[in-house]
Amino acid sequence: MIVNITLPNNTSYDITIDRLNEIYYDTKVVIVTNPTVSSFHLEYLKEKITAKEISVVTVPDGEQYKNMQTIDMILDHCFENRLDRKSLLVAFGGGVIGDMTGFAASIYQRGINFVQVPTTLLSQVDASVGGKTGINNKYGKNLIGAFHQPKEVLIDPYFLTTLPKREFGAGIAEIIKMAVTFNKDFFQWLEENDLTKEENIKIAIQKSVETKANVVIQDEKENGIRAALNYGHTFGHVIENETQYKTYLHGEAVGIGMVMANELAVKLGHISQEEASRVKKLLEKYNIPTSYKIVDVEEFYEHFFLDKKSLDNKIKFILPKKIGSCLITDEINKDDVIEVLKVFN
Amino acid sequence: MIVNITLPNNTSYDITIDRLNEIYYDTKVVIVTNPTVSSFHLEYLKEKITAKEISVVTVPDGEQYKNMQTIDMILDHCFENRLDRKSLLVAFGGGVIGDMTGFAASIYQRGINFVQVPTTLLSQVDASVGGKTGINNKYGKNLIGAFHQPKEVLIDPYFLTTLPKREFGAGIAEIIKMAVTFNKDFFQWLEENDLTKEENIKIAIQKSVETKANVVIQDEKENGIRAALNYGHTFGHVIENETQYKTYLHGEAVGIGMVMANELAVKLGHISQEEASRVKKLLEKYNIPTSYKIVDVEEFYEHFFLDKKSLDNKIKFILPKKIGSCLITDEINKDDVIEVLKVFN
Repeated sequence: MIVNITLPNNTSYDITIDRLNEIYYDTKVVIVTNPTVSSFHLEYLKEKITAKEISVVTVPDGEQYKNMQTIDMILDHCFENRLDRKSLLVAFGGGVIGDMTGFAASIYQRGINFVQVPTTLLSQVDASVGGKTGINNKYGKNLIGAFHQPKEVLIDPYFLTTLPKREFGAGIAEIIKMAVTFNKDFFQWLEENDLTKEENIKIAIQKSVETKANVVIQDEKENGIRAALNYGHTFGHVIENETQYKTYLHGEAVGIGMVMANELAVKLGHISQEEASRVKKLLEKYNIPTSYKIVDVEEFYEHFFLDKKSLDNKIKFILPKKIGSCLITDEINKDDVIEVLKVFN
Repeated sequence: MIVNITLPNNTSYDITIDRLNEIYYDTKVVIVTNPTVSSFHLEYLKEKITAKEISVVTVPDGEQYKNMQTIDMILDHCFENRLDRKSLLVAFGGGVIGDMTGFAASIYQRGINFVQVPTTLLSQVDASVGGKTGINNKYGKNLIGAFHQPKEVLIDPYFLTTLPKREFGAGIAEIIKMAVTFNKDFFQWLEENDLTKEENIKIAIQKSVETKANVVIQDEKENGIRAALNYGHTFGHVIENETQYKTYLHGEAVGIGMVMANELAVKLGHISQEEASRVKKLLEKYNIPTSYKIVDVEEFYEHFFLDKKSLDNKIKFILPKKIGSCLITDEINKDDVIEVLKVFN
């Protein structure tokens, strides 16, 4: 199936959820990948994708390498292979590969095309859709980057067959996120169905991509509703930052972040304790972590301000309002937040 | 006077050519400048521009510092001053400052606003208009960058009072470029008037900005007509590259490049020898260099391919067709080019 995104500035691209078809690009192509993905699936990809000239750059695997040094590696490869303005990068891996490849494409010769071929569940349902690209630096996560929409997104569920269980769970966390914030029927469907079954995960990917596409079309640059996709992220980013991106997968940190956001939402009367428990139970069904030991509550609170969403020294929280809709607010009292953080202390 | 640019994607901004008015920005502002501009004019600027919070980052002066290290300096300053997504960078200097500030703004938190306050003639007539931003690297000039339009451009001719003569000439070269490629009446006016007089330079700035604005509106991303603005640049970039950006100012290299392009245009019958001489004479009137010693003709030719405009290993030349219009072509025989290069050998 194909989901189309057409943005107000007339950028348009398709997201295809299906086994890869054979495709020929009449230009130079560089596939950006990491050793793990490469060893499992590069041959499969190269059977499908052919081009005028094709080369591969393999970058180190992991969030800790999502930095300017790795971008330079990718760009150097592009320069050495004399890519021109019509050339194409293919992001072949998870969210880290997608974010970096997209960012490299956005600044190479002031912007060239790129294609997303996401191989993890998380990147299939979330990271590959929407055109956010970027890298981390010592100040925090995704603080350097660009909005750069892919030319197309090719989601092949086949890649999930080799995905470790933890990474699968991390992807489920983002699927649950979409359901809690935007679609109560989808949430109920998630409670009733087993996502480890292939026919179900395909439906869940489709639903998630449709939901995200709909949000991105309305608000590409995140001036409004798109911020709702950051449900769980305000807390999650601090957790990732405190643990130096080493302890948790992004989706796992978001899972914990959702539980924290729900705690705050319960306290402020936006959702019931029972609804919060349903979300937690659904996360636990896929072994997604739901607890985190906050060592220093004040320090944790301070770290919110490093997040680029903290405009004017305010912190933007996304809180569910019942299951299936949500509230974006930067008007939460520090005292209320601190009290919630103490629950995890 | 004000020239407005409205791009097809609805981005719109004004270019004001006038003494600076007092202006208040209700956000954090970082002024990016260099020690030279700062010592002459920072106090003047700070009298005019006020903001919620204002700070200055001073970066080293010169094209050789137009690199990622300097971008990191600017970005670090922004992070340390906790700029958010509504904050604003002000590019206060010549083209190098403008290109770097624009690029830093384009990647800080996936893009924030910036304002151009160009202080050199070259940046006033050319670099500050059009949204091209970028830096150099070991592979060449402006190879990393983004299209990022400023929020506004404030051109104050007062800054030209402290501009060294050589830099003034470099700016005139770009003015002549606009006239040769787009406007024969303007070219004739340039032949008849003295641009060192203030009333004349204001007219010339206005004409150049209008010409450039008109081109950028038609073709922001340089898929067609915008390439005509690179008249003189195909050769000029190689000259800058060979001399490591140390010998010539950008406008001077473009001046030489125009003479080389004209030589090729004469050879191919697009302009007469007499027209080429008129252009050369006009350049010489402002002491703009018009000759360059090519050491190795084949090597010079090879260097064309490092230019990002060389799609599919073809070199794009912009050749005047009479004075006042031009031809964009990548169909020139290597032999013809080599023969022309030998004239400078």
